Amino acid sequence: MALNLKRLSYEYLEQDLKNKSELLLISNPIHKKVPIFIHNNQTVCESLVILQYIDEVWPEVGPTILPSDPYERAIARFWAAFVDDKLYASWSAIFKAKSEEAKAEAISQTVACLILLEEAFKNCSKGKIFFNGDSVGFLDFTLGSHSGWIKTAEEMFGIKLYDERKMPLLLEWQNRFRLVDCVNEVIPDAVRIEEYLKSMGVGR
Amino acid sequence: MALNLKRLSYEYLEQDLKNKSELLLISNPIHKKVPIFIHNNQTVCESLVILQYIDEVWPEVGPTILPSDPYERAIARFWAAFVDDKLYASWSAIFKAKSEEAKAEAISQTVACLILLEEAFKNCSKGKIFFNGDSVGFLDFTLGSHSGWIKTAEEMFGIKLYDERKMPLLLEWQNRFRLVDCVNEVIPDAVRIEEYLKSMGVGR
Repeated sequence: MALNLKRLSYEYLEQDLKNKSELLLISNPIHKKVPIFIHNNQTVCESLVILQYIDEVWPEVGPTILPSDPYERAIARFWAAFVDDKLYASWSAIFKAKSEEAKAEAISQTVACLILLEEAFKNCSKGKIFFNGDSVGFLDFTLGSHSGWIKTAEEMFGIKLYDERKMPLLLEWQNRFRLVDCVNEVIPDAVRIEEYLKSMGVGR
Repeated sequence: MALNLKRLSYEYLEQDLKNKSELLLISNPIHKKVPIFIHNNQTVCESLVILQYIDEVWPEVGPTILPSDPYERAIARFWAAFVDDKLYASWSAIFKAKSEEAKAEAISQTVACLILLEEAFKNCSKGKIFFNGDSVGFLDFTLGSHSGWIKTAEEMFGIKLYDERKMPLLLEWQNRFRLVDCVNEVIPDAVRIEEYLKSMGVGR
């Protein structure tokens, strides 16, 4: 999404996470995870690190990914860490839950995180349409990458996580985000995520 | 440490974590944790976010906290996240362990993380004396803030985590780091950390 936003050309190598390639294992020996970004034979791992790297290597190309004001950058980094840590732990626990009780707890945690992110949206967007203002950026990409998984959890388990009364702005933001060109070109839909999860033996 | 490095004046308000102040709870309602940095009536939370904020608000004052090269910044951010996430989870599990088995597992995880950080030190420092080169910076502060706790775990439980055969450079770095003025002025020693842990009922 970030490379598309900046209209940089790249080669996308999809990885089979059941059978990790030599390139993946060599490139990220510490976490053995995607995404991995290879540029000039140098490897950058971890989503938030990659987003900042792209912004810093190509600051003048296309829109900036992080806000320019230091305080707004700090707030975006704070919430991105919250999404990557707390929100991710919450929704992924829904898929991993071994009991109805654990699932209910994970659902309630996910909703609690989304309610906080509704507030964060108000504070970050300041009346604009994205977290980053008029165009998508750091926190839009970070949260947006989770939203498909959260929708998939709703569909696979017949549950409700996004509540239009409790998080109306976030719901509108999410629909708007998915329509942005740089996002729409690459983001997987709920069907594709569900197929992937089933292939990994999750949620059966 | 970062404010001292840049010779910026500040007021330090120590917090009683058993009885959190109104200021702490209002300033960081999401995590209810320290550190919290208040500047111009704006609040920045989370250590790594604060370090980057200070570097971005005062880029010309004193040495820079992050490396200037985008790739070196990415590597520093990658390892700082590793320290905050994996290393922290490992050593804190030693204090929390409810069984000898859990403690042994936490010890082995901590040592494994430190061995990886020995490699990281070689790659980041490139023969210089700190992760950040000739002067301390982002990753030095991040890892250095954990080193006292790791030493305290060694002393409290009579265990060995730092192994001079497996991580000779990291051990030298750690001793060197603690002698740097901006660090030495503020970093708590093992005795103080042990007193704090006992006051919190940990490790008894």
